[in-house]
Amino acid sequence: MRMTFVKWRGETFAALLEPQGAALLKGTFGSWTRTGEVIPPEQIEMTGMPRPSKVVAVGLNYRQHIEEMGEETHADPVLFLKPASAVIGHGEAIVLPPQSAQVDFEAELAVVMKKQAKNITPAQAEEYILGYTCLNDVTARDLQKKDGQWTRAKGFDTFCPIGPIITDEINPNQVEVKLLQNGVVRQQGNTSMFLVPVQELVSYISSVMTLLPGDVITTGTPSGIGPMHAGDIISVEIEGIGTLTNPVEHA
Amino acid sequence: MRMTFVKWRGETFAALLEPQGAALLKGTFGSWTRTGEVIPPEQIEMTGMPRPSKVVAVGLNYRQHIEEMGEETHADPVLFLKPASAVIGHGEAIVLPPQSAQVDFEAELAVVMKKQAKNITPAQAEEYILGYTCLNDVTARDLQKKDGQWTRAKGFDTFCPIGPIITDEINPNQVEVKLLQNGVVRQQGNTSMFLVPVQELVSYISSVMTLLPGDVITTGTPSGIGPMHAGDIISVEIEGIGTLTNPVEHA
Repeated sequence: MRMTFVKWRGETFAALLEPQGAALLKGTFGSWTRTGEVIPPEQIEMTGMPRPSKVVAVGLNYRQHIEEMGEETHADPVLFLKPASAVIGHGEAIVLPPQSAQVDFEAELAVVMKKQAKNITPAQAEEYILGYTCLNDVTARDLQKKDGQWTRAKGFDTFCPIGPIITDEINPNQVEVKLLQNGVVRQQGNTSMFLVPVQELVSYISSVMTLLPGDVITTGTPSGIGPMHAGDIISVEIEGIGTLTNPVEHA
Repeated sequence: MRMTFVKWRGETFAALLEPQGAALLKGTFGSWTRTGEVIPPEQIEMTGMPRPSKVVAVGLNYRQHIEEMGEETHADPVLFLKPASAVIGHGEAIVLPPQSAQVDFEAELAVVMKKQAKNITPAQAEEYILGYTCLNDVTARDLQKKDGQWTRAKGFDTFCPIGPIITDEINPNQVEVKLLQNGVVRQQGNTSMFLVPVQELVSYISSVMTLLPGDVITTGTPSGIGPMHAGDIISVEIEGIGTLTNPVEHA
Protein backbone atom coordinates (compact mmCIF):
# COMPACT_ATOMS: atom_id res chain seq x y z
CA MET A 1 0.00 0.00 0.00
CA ARG A 2 1.19 3.48 -0.97
CA MET A 3 -1.11 6.36 -0.11
CA THR A 4 -1.27 10.12 0.24
CA PHE A 5 -3.79 12.93 0.69
CA VAL A 6 -5.04 14.82 -2.34
CA LYS A 7 -7.09 17.86 -3.17
CA TRP A 8 -9.88 17.07 -5.60
CA ARG A 9 -12.77 19.34 -6.52
CA GLY A 10 -12.24 21.53 -3.46
CA GLU A 11 -12.12 18.67 -0.96
CA THR A 12 -9.34 16.67 0.69
CA PHE A 13 -9.30 12.91 0.28
CA ALA A 14 -7.10 10.08 1.42
CA ALA A 15 -6.02 8.23 -1.74
CA LEU A 16 -4.23 5.04 -2.70
CA LEU A 17 -1.40 5.55 -5.19
CA GLU A 18 -1.78 2.97 -7.92
CA PRO A 19 -0.36 2.66 -11.45
CA GLN A 20 -3.54 4.11 -12.98
CA GLY A 21 -3.68 7.07 -10.56
CA ALA A 22 -4.93 8.05 -7.12
CA ALA A 23 -7.87 5.94 -5.96
CA LEU A 24 -9.95 8.15 -3.67
CA LEU A 25 -10.94 6.85 -0.24
CA LYS A 26 -13.81 7.71 2.09
CA GLY A 27 -14.58 6.96 5.73
CA THR A 28 -12.75 7.55 8.99
CA PHE A 29 -8.97 7.68 9.28
CA GLY A 30 -7.40 4.26 8.89
CA SER A 31 -10.61 2.42 8.04
CA TRP A 32 -11.29 3.80 4.60
CA THR A 33 -13.09 2.26 1.65
CA ARG A 34 -12.71 3.21 -2.02
CA THR A 35 -15.09 5.77 -3.48
CA GLY A 36 -14.54 4.13 -6.87
CA GLU A 37 -13.14 7.34 -8.35
CA VAL A 38 -9.53 7.36 -9.63
CA ILE A 39 -7.67 10.60 -10.40
CA PRO A 40 -5.27 10.24 -13.35
CA PRO A 41 -1.58 10.68 -12.39
CA GLU A 42 -1.15 14.08 -14.08
CA GLN A 43 -4.05 15.55 -12.07
CA ILE A 44 -2.89 14.40 -8.61
CA GLU A 45 -2.43 17.37 -6.28
CA MET A 46 -0.94 16.14 -3.01
CA THR A 47 -1.77 17.99 0.22
CA GLY A 48 -1.01 17.66 3.94
CA MET A 49 -2.44 14.92 6.10
CA PRO A 50 -5.20 15.73 8.61
CA ARG A 51 -3.77 17.18 11.84
CA PRO A 52 -2.94 14.35 14.22
CA SER A 53 -4.10 14.43 17.85
CA LYS A 54 -0.41 14.20 18.72
CA VAL A 55 3.10 13.88 17.31
CA VAL A 56 5.29 11.85 19.66
CA ALA A 57 8.99 12.13 18.98
CA VAL A 58 11.93 10.08 20.12
CA GLY A 59 15.22 11.78 20.84
CA LEU A 60 18.66 10.36 20.36
CA ASN A 61 17.83 7.07 18.65
CA TYR A 62 20.88 6.82 16.35
CA ARG A 63 24.22 6.35 18.08
CA GLN A 64 26.10 8.85 15.88
CA HIS A 65 23.62 11.67 16.61
CA ILE A 66 23.99 11.08 20.37
CA GLU A 67 27.73 11.60 19.97
CA GLU A 68 27.39 14.80 17.92
CA MET A 69 24.98 16.23 20.54
CA GLY A 70 27.36 15.33 23.39
CA GLU A 71 24.55 13.38 25.06
CA GLU A 72 24.57 10.04 26.84
CA THR A 73 22.52 7.02 25.91
CA HIS A 74 19.39 6.71 28.08
CA ALA A 75 18.11 3.37 29.35
CA ASP A 76 14.63 4.16 27.99
CA PRO A 77 13.85 6.12 24.81
CA VAL A 78 13.57 9.88 25.49
CA LEU A 79 10.12 11.09 24.44
CA PHE A 80 8.92 14.58 23.58
CA LEU A 81 5.87 16.02 21.85
CA LYS A 82 5.54 18.38 18.91
CA PRO A 83 2.24 20.32 18.84
CA ALA A 84 -0.21 19.60 16.01
CA SER A 85 -0.07 23.34 15.25
CA ALA A 86 3.48 22.79 13.93
CA VAL A 87 2.41 20.29 11.25
CA ILE A 88 2.71 21.32 7.59
CA GLY A 89 2.63 19.33 4.36
CA HIS A 90 4.85 18.78 1.34
CA GLY A 91 5.65 22.07 -0.38
CA GLU A 92 4.59 24.35 2.48
CA ALA A 93 7.20 26.76 3.85
CA ILE A 94 9.24 26.25 7.00
CA VAL A 95 9.20 29.70 8.61
CA LEU A 96 12.27 30.79 10.60
CA PRO A 97 11.12 32.54 13.80
CA PRO A 98 12.84 35.74 14.93
CA GLN A 99 13.54 34.22 18.38
CA SER A 100 16.17 31.81 17.03
CA ALA A 101 19.53 32.30 15.36
CA GLN A 102 19.92 28.62 14.44
CA VAL A 103 17.11 26.50 13.06
CA ASP A 104 18.30 23.00 12.14
CA PHE A 105 16.86 20.26 9.94
CA GLU A 106 16.49 16.72 11.29
CA ALA A 107 15.45 14.07 8.75
CA GLU A 108 13.37 11.30 10.30
CA LEU A 109 11.33 8.22 9.48
CA ALA A 110 7.84 8.68 10.95
CA VAL A 111 5.16 6.13 11.81
CA VAL A 112 1.48 6.91 11.19
CA MET A 113 -0.96 4.98 13.39
CA LYS A 114 -4.00 3.21 11.93
CA LYS A 115 -5.83 2.05 15.05
CA GLN A 116 -6.16 3.10 18.67
CA ALA A 117 -3.31 1.48 20.60
CA LYS A 118 -2.67 1.13 24.35
CA ASN A 119 -0.25 -1.33 25.95
CA ILE A 120 0.46 -3.19 22.73
CA THR A 121 3.46 -5.52 22.42
CA PRO A 122 6.20 -5.07 19.79
CA ALA A 123 4.82 -8.15 18.01
CA GLN A 124 1.38 -6.51 17.77
CA ALA A 125 2.68 -3.10 16.64
CA GLU A 126 2.49 -3.65 12.88
CA GLU A 127 -1.25 -4.34 12.86
CA TYR A 128 -1.79 -0.93 14.52
CA ILE A 129 0.50 0.93 12.10
CA LEU A 130 -0.89 2.44 8.89
CA GLY A 131 2.55 3.01 7.38
CA TYR A 132 5.71 5.07 7.28
CA THR A 133 6.40 8.55 5.98
CA CYS A 134 9.02 11.34 5.93
CA LEU A 135 9.27 13.95 8.68
CA ASN A 136 11.55 16.91 9.33
CA ASP A 137 11.89 17.48 13.09
CA VAL A 138 12.80 21.17 12.69
CA THR A 139 14.61 22.42 15.82
CA ALA A 140 15.73 25.85 17.03
CA ARG A 141 19.05 24.52 18.31
CA ASP A 142 19.94 27.59 20.37
CA LEU A 143 16.60 27.53 22.20
CA GLN A 144 16.84 23.76 22.74
CA LYS A 145 20.09 24.28 24.64
CA LYS A 146 18.79 27.30 26.54
CA ASP A 147 15.44 25.90 27.70
CA GLY A 148 16.43 22.39 28.79
CA GLN A 149 12.95 21.20 27.85
CA TRP A 150 12.70 20.87 24.05
CA THR A 151 9.08 21.98 23.59
CA ARG A 152 9.67 25.57 22.52
CA ALA A 153 12.66 24.72 20.31
CA LYS A 154 10.70 22.05 18.45
CA GLY A 155 7.21 23.53 18.70
CA PHE A 156 7.11 26.62 16.49
CA ASP A 157 4.46 26.76 13.77
CA THR A 158 5.73 25.03 10.56
CA PHE A 159 8.38 23.04 12.50
CA CYS A 160 6.86 19.66 11.65
CA PRO A 161 6.73 18.98 7.89
CA ILE A 162 5.24 15.51 7.31
CA GLY A 163 4.47 13.44 4.22
CA PRO A 164 3.50 13.26 1.47
CA ILE A 165 3.57 9.48 0.90
CA ILE A 166 2.64 6.85 3.51
CA THR A 167 3.58 3.26 2.76
CA ASP A 168 3.70 -0.06 4.58
CA GLU A 169 5.85 -1.64 1.87
CA ILE A 170 9.20 -1.12 3.63
CA ASN A 171 11.10 -2.68 6.50
CA PRO A 172 11.21 0.40 8.75
CA ASN A 173 14.33 -0.86 10.50
CA GLN A 174 16.37 -1.12 7.30
CA VAL A 175 16.00 1.94 5.07
CA GLU A 176 18.28 4.81 4.10
CA VAL A 177 17.29 8.24 5.47
CA LYS A 178 18.76 11.30 3.74
CA LEU A 179 18.48 15.02 4.10
CA LEU A 180 19.27 17.25 1.13
CA GLN A 181 19.84 20.98 1.45
CA ASN A 182 19.61 22.65 -1.95
CA GLY A 183 20.38 19.28 -3.50
CA VAL A 184 23.46 18.58 -1.35
CA VAL A 185 23.32 15.54 0.95
CA ARG A 186 23.72 16.69 4.57
CA GLN A 187 22.42 13.72 6.53
CA GLN A 188 22.67 10.11 5.52
CA GLY A 189 21.84 7.27 7.87
CA ASN A 190 20.20 3.90 7.88
CA THR A 191 17.46 2.95 10.31
CA SER A 192 19.37 -0.29 10.91
CA MET A 193 21.40 1.97 13.26
CA PHE A 194 18.37 2.61 15.52
CA LEU A 195 19.06 1.98 19.19
CA VAL A 196 15.39 0.96 19.53
CA PRO A 197 13.57 -0.48 16.50
CA VAL A 198 10.19 0.87 15.39
CA GLN A 199 8.00 -1.91 16.80
CA GLU A 200 9.56 -1.51 20.25
CA LEU A 201 9.19 2.28 20.13
CA VAL A 202 5.49 2.03 19.32
CA SER A 203 4.99 -0.54 22.08
CA TYR A 204 6.92 1.62 24.56
CA ILE A 205 4.94 4.77 23.76
CA SER A 206 1.66 2.85 23.94
CA SER A 207 2.59 1.78 27.48
CA VAL A 208 2.43 5.49 28.42
CA MET A 209 -0.25 7.10 26.27
CA THR A 210 -3.13 5.93 24.12
CA LEU A 211 -2.27 6.36 20.44
CA LEU A 212 -5.16 7.32 18.15
CA PRO A 213 -5.66 6.79 14.40
CA GLY A 214 -3.57 9.39 12.57
CA ASP A 215 -1.17 9.97 15.46
CA VAL A 216 2.44 10.28 14.36
CA ILE A 217 5.54 8.82 15.99
CA THR A 218 8.86 10.07 14.74
CA THR A 219 11.91 7.97 15.34
CA GLY A 220 14.92 10.25 15.78
CA THR A 221 17.49 11.64 13.41
CA PRO A 222 20.87 10.37 12.19
CA SER A 223 24.05 12.48 12.43
CA GLY A 224 24.72 15.44 10.18
CA ILE A 225 22.17 17.93 11.48
CA GLY A 226 22.78 21.50 10.41
CA PRO A 227 21.24 24.95 10.07
CA MET A 228 18.75 26.11 7.42
CA HIS A 229 18.60 29.55 5.86
CA ALA A 230 15.86 31.52 4.15
CA GLY A 231 15.74 30.54 0.49
CA ASP A 232 16.87 26.94 1.11
CA ILE A 233 15.04 23.99 -0.35
CA ILE A 234 15.09 21.11 2.15
CA SER A 235 14.23 17.52 1.27
CA VAL A 236 13.87 14.45 3.45
CA GLU A 237 14.32 11.40 1.25
CA ILE A 238 13.63 7.90 2.56
CA GLU A 239 14.32 4.74 0.63
CA GLY A 240 11.13 3.05 -0.50
CA ILE A 241 8.92 5.92 0.68
CA GLY A 242 9.70 9.08 -1.29
CA THR A 243 10.67 12.70 -0.75
CA LEU A 244 9.26 15.48 1.44
CA THR A 245 10.35 18.91 0.18
CA ASN A 246 9.83 22.29 1.85
CA PRO A 247 11.18 25.74 1.13
CA VAL A 248 12.53 27.87 4.00
CA GLU A 249 11.39 31.46 4.60
CA HIS A 250 11.96 34.29 7.05
CA ALA A 251 9.01 35.14 9.31
CA MET B 1 -19.54 34.15 33.07
CA ARG B 2 -19.36 30.75 34.75
CA MET B 3 -19.67 27.71 32.51
CA THR B 4 -19.15 23.98 32.37
CA PHE B 5 -19.91 20.98 30.15
CA VAL B 6 -22.95 18.86 30.92
CA LYS B 7 -24.52 15.60 29.82
CA TRP B 8 -28.15 16.03 28.85
CA ARG B 9 -30.31 13.46 27.08
CA GLY B 10 -27.29 11.47 25.91
CA GLU B 11 -25.42 14.46 24.45
CA THR B 12 -22.68 16.76 25.74
CA PHE B 13 -23.33 20.51 25.82
CA ALA B 14 -21.41 23.57 26.88
CA ALA B 15 -23.57 25.35 29.45
CA LEU B 16 -23.65 28.63 31.34
CA LEU B 17 -24.10 28.25 35.09
CA GLU B 18 -26.80 30.68 36.18
CA PRO B 19 -28.95 30.93 39.32
CA GLN B 20 -31.86 29.15 37.61
CA GLY B 21 -29.69 26.30 36.29
CA ALA B 22 -27.43 25.37 33.36
CA ALA B 23 -28.30 27.27 30.18
CA LEU B 24 -27.36 24.98 27.28
CA LEU B 25 -25.20 26.35 24.47
CA LYS B 26 -24.81 25.36 20.83
CA GLY B 27 -22.28 26.23 18.14
CA THR B 28 -18.52 25.92 17.86
CA PHE B 29 -16.15 26.14 20.82
CA GLY B 30 -15.90 29.67 22.17
CA SER B 31 -18.56 31.19 19.91
CA TRP B 32 -21.65 29.59 21.34
CA THR B 33 -25.22 30.83 21.43
CA ARG B 34 -27.96 29.75 23.84
CA THR B 35 -30.26 26.90 22.81
CA GLY B 36 -32.91 28.44 25.09
CA GLU B 37 -33.09 25.30 27.23
CA VAL B 38 -32.14 25.53 30.93
CA ILE B 39 -31.45 22.43 33.05
CA PRO B 40 -32.59 22.87 36.66
CA PRO B 41 -29.71 22.81 39.19
CA GLU B 42 -30.57 19.41 40.67
CA GLN B 43 -30.39 17.76 37.22
CA ILE B 44 -26.99 19.16 36.18
CA GLU B 45 -24.54 16.34 35.39
CA MET B 46 -21.11 17.87 34.73
CA THR B 47 -18.75 16.10 32.33
CA GLY B 48 -15.28 16.65 30.87
CA MET B 49 -14.51 19.37 28.35
CA PRO B 50 -13.88 18.44 24.69
CA ARG B 51 -10.31 17.28 24.14
CA PRO B 52 -8.12 20.28 23.34
CA SER B 53 -5.75 20.26 20.36
CA LYS B 54 -3.00 20.86 22.92
CA VAL B 55 -2.26 21.42 26.59
CA VAL B 56 0.72 23.74 26.99
CA ALA B 57 2.23 23.75 30.44
CA VAL B 58 4.62 26.10 32.14
CA GLY B 59 7.16 24.73 34.55
CA LEU B 60 8.57 26.43 37.59
CA ASN B 61 6.40 29.54 37.70
CA TYR B 62 6.18 29.96 41.51
CA ARG B 63 9.42 30.82 43.26
CA GLN B 64 8.87 28.38 46.17
CA HIS B 65 8.34 25.39 43.86
CA ILE B 66 11.59 26.17 42.02
CA GLU B 67 13.40 25.96 45.34
CA GLU B 68 11.81 22.65 46.37
CA MET B 69 12.76 21.15 42.97
CA GLY B 70 16.36 22.38 43.30
CA GLU B 71 16.00 24.16 39.95
CA GLU B 72 17.19 27.55 38.83
CA THR B 73 15.02 30.36 37.51
CA HIS B 74 15.05 30.49 33.69
CA ALA B 75 15.09 33.74 31.78
CA ASP B 76 12.11 32.59 29.71
CA PRO B 77 9.22 30.43 30.94
CA VAL B 78 9.96 26.71 30.49
CA LEU B 79 7.27 25.13 28.29
CA PHE B 80 6.20 21.53 27.94
CA LEU B 81 3.20 19.75 26.44
CA LYS B 82 0.81 17.24 27.94
CA PRO B 83 -0.90 15.02 25.33
CA ALA B 84 -4.66 15.38 24.86
CA SER B 85 -4.89 11.63 25.57
CA ALA B 86 -4.06 12.43 29.23
CA VAL B 87 -7.09 14.70 29.72
CA ILE B 88 -9.86 13.52 32.07
CA GLY B 89 -12.75 15.36 33.71
CA HIS B 90 -14.06 15.95 37.23
CA GLY B 91 -14.76 12.66 39.00
CA GLU B 92 -12.78 10.45 36.64
CA ALA B 93 -10.00 8.33 38.14
CA ILE B 94 -6.29 9.17 38.04
CA VAL B 95 -4.68 5.79 37.27
CA LEU B 96 -1.23 5.09 38.75
CA PRO B 97 0.91 3.40 36.08
CA PRO B 98 3.08 0.42 37.04
CA GLN B 99 6.18 2.16 35.60
CA SER B 100 6.32 4.73 38.41
CA ALA B 101 6.87 4.45 42.16
CA GLN B 102 5.99 8.11 42.83
CA VAL B 103 3.10 9.90 41.16
CA ASP B 104 2.68 13.45 42.50
CA PHE B 105 -0.17 15.94 42.41
CA GLU B 106 0.43 19.50 41.18
CA ALA B 107 -2.49 21.93 41.62
CA GLU B 108 -2.59 24.57 38.89
CA LEU B 109 -4.67 27.41 37.52
CA ALA B 110 -5.36 26.71 33.83
CA VAL B 111 -6.35 29.06 31.02
CA VAL B 112 -8.85 27.93 28.35
CA MET B 113 -8.55 29.73 25.01
CA LYS B 114 -11.61 31.15 23.24
CA LYS B 115 -10.15 32.30 19.92
CA GLN B 116 -7.23 31.39 17.66
CA ALA B 117 -4.20 33.34 18.87
CA LYS B 118 -0.78 33.91 17.30
CA ASN B 119 1.66 36.65 18.29
CA ILE B 120 -0.76 38.43 20.58
CA THR B 121 0.44 40.98 23.13
CA PRO B 122 -0.16 40.65 26.89
CA ALA B 123 -2.66 43.52 26.60
CA GLN B 124 -4.64 41.57 23.96
CA ALA B 125 -4.55 38.24 25.83
CA GLU B 126 -7.82 38.58 27.75
CA GLU B 127 -9.95 38.96 24.63
CA TYR B 128 -8.59 35.59 23.42
CA ILE B 129 -9.16 33.82 26.75
CA LEU B 130 -12.46 32.05 27.47
CA GLY B 131 -11.75 31.72 31.18
CA TYR B 132 -9.89 29.94 33.95
CA THR B 133 -10.28 26.47 35.41
CA CYS B 134 -8.62 23.93 37.75
CA LEU B 135 -5.98 21.48 36.53
CA ASN B 136 -3.91 18.77 38.20
CA ASP B 137 -0.55 18.41 36.41
CA VAL B 138 -0.05 14.81 37.55
CA THR B 139 3.63 13.87 37.36
CA ALA B 140 5.57 10.62 37.77
CA ARG B 141 8.34 12.29 39.74
CA ASP B 142 10.82 9.40 39.46
CA LEU B 143 10.47 9.26 35.67
CA GLN B 144 10.71 13.06 35.40
CA LYS B 145 14.14 12.90 37.05
CA LYS B 146 15.25 9.86 35.05
CA ASP B 147 14.24 11.04 31.56
CA GLY B 148 15.39 14.66 31.60
CA GLN B 149 12.56 15.50 29.20
CA TRP B 150 9.25 15.63 31.11
CA THR B 151 6.96 14.18 28.42
CA ARG B 152 6.72 10.61 29.67
CA ALA B 153 6.48 11.61 33.34
CA LYS B 154 3.62 14.03 32.64
CA GLY B 155 2.01 12.26 29.68
CA PHE B 156 0.40 9.06 30.96
CA ASP B 157 -3.31 8.56 30.31
CA THR B 158 -5.40 10.24 33.07
CA PHE B 159 -2.50 12.55 34.09
CA CYS B 160 -4.36 15.74 33.15
CA PRO B 161 -7.59 16.23 35.12
CA ILE B 162 -9.21 19.52 34.05
CA GLY B 163 -12.38 21.37 35.02
CA PRO B 164 -15.20 21.32 35.76
CA ILE B 165 -15.97 25.07 35.98
CA ILE B 166 -14.57 27.72 33.61
CA THR B 167 -14.98 31.35 34.64
CA ASP B 168 -13.71 34.74 33.58
CA GLU B 169 -14.88 36.38 36.80
CA ILE B 170 -11.52 36.25 38.60
CA ASN B 171 -8.23 38.10 38.49
CA PRO B 172 -6.04 35.15 37.46
CA ASN B 173 -2.97 36.75 39.02
CA GLN B 174 -4.51 37.02 42.47
CA VAL B 175 -6.30 33.85 43.56
CA GLU B 176 -5.58 31.16 46.13
CA VAL B 177 -4.68 27.72 44.70
CA LYS B 178 -5.02 24.73 47.03
CA LEU B 179 -4.56 21.02 46.78
CA LEU B 180 -6.39 18.74 49.21
CA GLN B 181 -5.48 15.09 49.66
CA ASN B 182 -8.28 13.24 51.44
CA GLY B 183 -9.43 16.59 52.80
CA VAL B 184 -5.99 17.66 54.12
CA VAL B 185 -4.45 20.79 52.57
CA ARG B 186 -1.12 19.85 50.94
CA GLN B 187 -0.48 22.78 48.61
CA GLN B 188 -1.50 26.35 49.21
CA GLY B 189 -0.27 29.22 47.07
CA ASN B 190 -1.47 32.41 45.55
CA THR B 191 -1.07 33.22 41.87
CA SER B 192 0.22 36.65 42.97
CA MET B 193 3.49 34.69 43.45
CA PHE B 194 3.72 33.89 39.71
CA LEU B 195 7.08 34.75 38.19
CA VAL B 196 5.25 35.46 34.91
CA PRO B 197 1.59 36.59 35.03
CA VAL B 198 -1.08 34.90 32.93
CA GLN B 199 -1.37 37.54 30.20
CA GLU B 200 2.40 37.44 29.58
CA LEU B 201 2.42 33.62 29.50
CA VAL B 202 -0.34 33.51 26.89
CA SER B 203 1.44 36.15 24.81
CA TYR B 204 4.76 34.30 25.12
CA ILE B 205 3.28 30.94 24.08
CA SER B 206 1.44 32.57 21.18
CA SER B 207 4.79 33.87 19.92
CA VAL B 208 5.81 30.23 19.43
CA MET B 209 2.69 28.30 18.48
CA THR B 210 -0.80 29.10 17.25
CA LEU B 211 -3.32 28.57 20.04
CA LEU B 212 -6.72 27.25 18.98
CA PRO B 213 -10.15 27.57 20.65
CA GLY B 214 -10.29 25.07 23.52
CA ASP B 215 -6.52 24.86 23.91
CA VAL B 216 -5.39 24.80 27.53
CA ILE B 217 -2.45 26.61 29.11
CA THR B 218 -1.54 25.59 32.63
CA THR B 219 0.46 27.98 34.71
CA GLY B 220 2.69 26.01 37.06
CA THR B 221 2.28 24.73 40.58
CA PRO B 222 3.06 26.25 43.99
CA SER B 223 5.20 24.44 46.59
CA GLY B 224 3.98 21.44 48.57
CA ILE B 225 3.84 18.81 45.83
CA GLY B 226 3.62 15.26 47.09
CA PRO B 227 2.77 11.66 46.19
CA MET B 228 -0.68 10.17 45.67
CA HIS B 229 -1.75 6.66 46.58
CA ALA B 230 -4.52 4.37 45.36
CA GLY B 231 -7.69 5.16 47.26
CA ASP B 232 -6.87 8.87 47.67
CA ILE B 233 -9.37 11.58 46.84
CA ILE B 234 -7.52 14.56 45.34
CA SER B 235 -9.04 18.03 44.96
CA VAL B 236 -7.71 21.15 43.28
CA GLU B 237 -9.56 24.12 44.77
CA ILE B 238 -9.15 27.59 43.29
CA GLU B 239 -10.65 30.73 44.81
CA GLY B 240 -13.50 32.06 42.69
CA ILE B 241 -13.48 29.06 40.34
CA GLY B 242 -14.42 25.89 42.23
CA THR B 243 -13.12 22.40 42.92
CA LEU B 244 -11.84 19.62 40.67
CA THR B 245 -11.96 16.25 42.44
CA ASN B 246 -10.57 12.93 41.22
CA PRO B 247 -10.12 9.57 42.91
CA VAL B 248 -6.81 7.71 42.53
CA GLU B 249 -6.62 4.07 41.42
CA HIS B 250 -4.03 1.43 40.64
CA ALA B 251 -3.75 0.43 36.98
